[in-house]
Amino acid sequence: MAAEAQDFDLKAYLAERRGAVDAALADYLPEEPASPYASVVQAMRYSLFAGGKRVRPILCLAAAEAVLNDPAEAAARVMPFACAIECIHTYSLIHDDLPAMDNDDLRRGKPTSHKVFGEALAILAGDGLLTLAFRLATGLKHYRHVPAEVALAAAGELAEAAGIHGMIGGQVVDIESEGKGGTLSHLRRLHELKTGALIAVSVRGGALLAGAAAAEQAALAAYGENVGLVFQVADDILDVIGQADLMGKNVGGDARKHKLTYPGLVGLEESRRQAEGLLSAALAAIEPFGPAARPLREIAAYVVQRTS
Amino acid sequence: MAAEAQDFDLKAYLAERRGAVDAALADYLPEEPASPYASVVQAMRYSLFAGGKRVRPILCLAAAEAVLNDPAEAAARVMPFACAIECIHTYSLIHDDLPAMDNDDLRRGKPTSHKVFGEALAILAGDGLLTLAFRLATGLKHYRHVPAEVALAAAGELAEAAGIHGMIGGQVVDIESEGKGGTLSHLRRLHELKTGALIAVSVRGGALLAGAAAAEQAALAAYGENVGLVFQVADDILDVIGQADLMGKNVGGDARKHKLTYPGLVGLEESRRQAEGLLSAALAAIEPFGPAARPLREIAAYVVQRTS
Repeated sequence: MAAEAQDFDLKAYLAERRGAVDAALADYLPEEPASPYASVVQAMRYSLFAGGKRVRPILCLAAAEAVLNDPAEAAARVMPFACAIECIHTYSLIHDDLPAMDNDDLRRGKPTSHKVFGEALAILAGDGLLTLAFRLATGLKHYRHVPAEVALAAAGELAEAAGIHGMIGGQVVDIESEGKGGTLSHLRRLHELKTGALIAVSVRGGALLAGAAAAEQAALAAYGENVGLVFQVADDILDVIGQADLMGKNVGGDARKHKLTYPGLVGLEESRRQAEGLLSAALAAIEPFGPAARPLREIAAYVVQRTS
Repeated sequence: MAAEAQDFDLKAYLAERRGAVDAALADYLPEEPASPYASVVQAMRYSLFAGGKRVRPILCLAAAEAVLNDPAEAAARVMPFACAIECIHTYSLIHDDLPAMDNDDLRRGKPTSHKVFGEALAILAGDGLLTLAFRLATGLKHYRHVPAEVALAAAGELAEAAGIHGMIGGQVVDIESEGKGGTLSHLRRLHELKTGALIAVSVRGGALLAGAAAAEQAALAAYGENVGLVFQVADDILDVIGQADLMGKNVGGDARKHKLTYPGLVGLEESRRQAEGLLSAALAAIEPFGPAARPLREIAAYVVQRTS
């Protein structure tokens, strides 16, 4: 494709989109220093602005851009939904880090929510972010050019992906399979639920809100499912091969906790091979979008490149 | 009003509506014994079917009945939303009972979720119910005769009432004011946030989904706000005067925990007087609905009667 030969600065693209997402999040969740519940807002903001790369909202924006080929219009249509997904991602990290769950003291190199604010406020900050997500996803006043039935459908898909048939189900499977071993198909299912479902709905929701036709929706859904899984396979590989400084957490942590990983089950080379296969499937799905899908292509490729 | 002289069996009304809500909840959250996340579904169902009186969903149904004067049509329009509210109420109880929060071992005479399933699964069961609530509230396929923009608006109001500017905010205020004393206006604000907001949105959401006109919505909103507060004032009074068997928890618990209560701040008689005032305001607001609002009237009156 000729367009792919043109310069594309992924780093600049990610930085620009990340800045836009950060600004929108700050707008949707302002500090409330004078309110009687200022502390929970502070705790929500602490985790929401703890250095997240905004991968999910950027995928949501990029999916809408693929459909509309107009970044400003794409942002206007999907930003509340993109930020809702980041709120859900952040709440899941806060609750996963709790002493009763993974009992982690550090997240992205910073003390976790319960270490800073105590367990009660950390639980409530997570609950608050999950609830805020649906305030945003249902907030028609924040959307531009989005019909109510489309916003409603996207919010419903978000609830499905974040719930027991998606992310929460995956968290349960993860907790219950710890130290027990398992097959690759079990691990694949775990990844699809725990992290894949939310990434997939980021892309699918972006497509839906951008007014994608049925065939476009199906293509972007396929991309989202493959990318959702490849993100986690790459994370498994990176945990083995290192790059502690880039990851912001201790390397080899999964192995120490006896968690199932792709490299642990099938070895490093086969894991990389499977990641390449998922990448190919993701890229094939969005081929028809041409240059408008360039960001989606570059993001997926970057995820896999980091592992080699 | 002549209609009020007719027989009305509140007990039968509540039992019938409660049965309908229970059946709908069981339908929306079936057991999934073969799924890998069967345990969290079991934990969610344990708390959801732990003997709740379904006050909030019944208020939602009764508000829709006041608008439509047709119980079957009212149920068809609001049942998913009514059940969503019960899911949110139930999640809030699970998380409030956690060791890091109120650390309660018993709820309605049964072991609390974390005592039965462990803390991790209790946290996830709460998260799962909160997420399911928005799956239901956005699930247009479950609604009959409800336009998408109305369902979206109701789901948005639910998120607002359940979030930091409502229930979660109230929980934060409650935790932070424990043992610190406070004024009546502080306590009133706490009650309005922690329990009032969700009760008020039960009524307001029912009205909205039933297609209430603006004046009807305003009237039912006023009823909901007054009833939301009177519920908690009545709870404060009942905690002082006893009836342990009816409440299913230890009498005087609030005083032992040095929580702020209406009787603690203004005495029993003044608390009763204020409850009567709130009841009068609630009844005055819905006067225009005539006989169709009989259930709403009887429920409000019953709440206050129990305290005398």
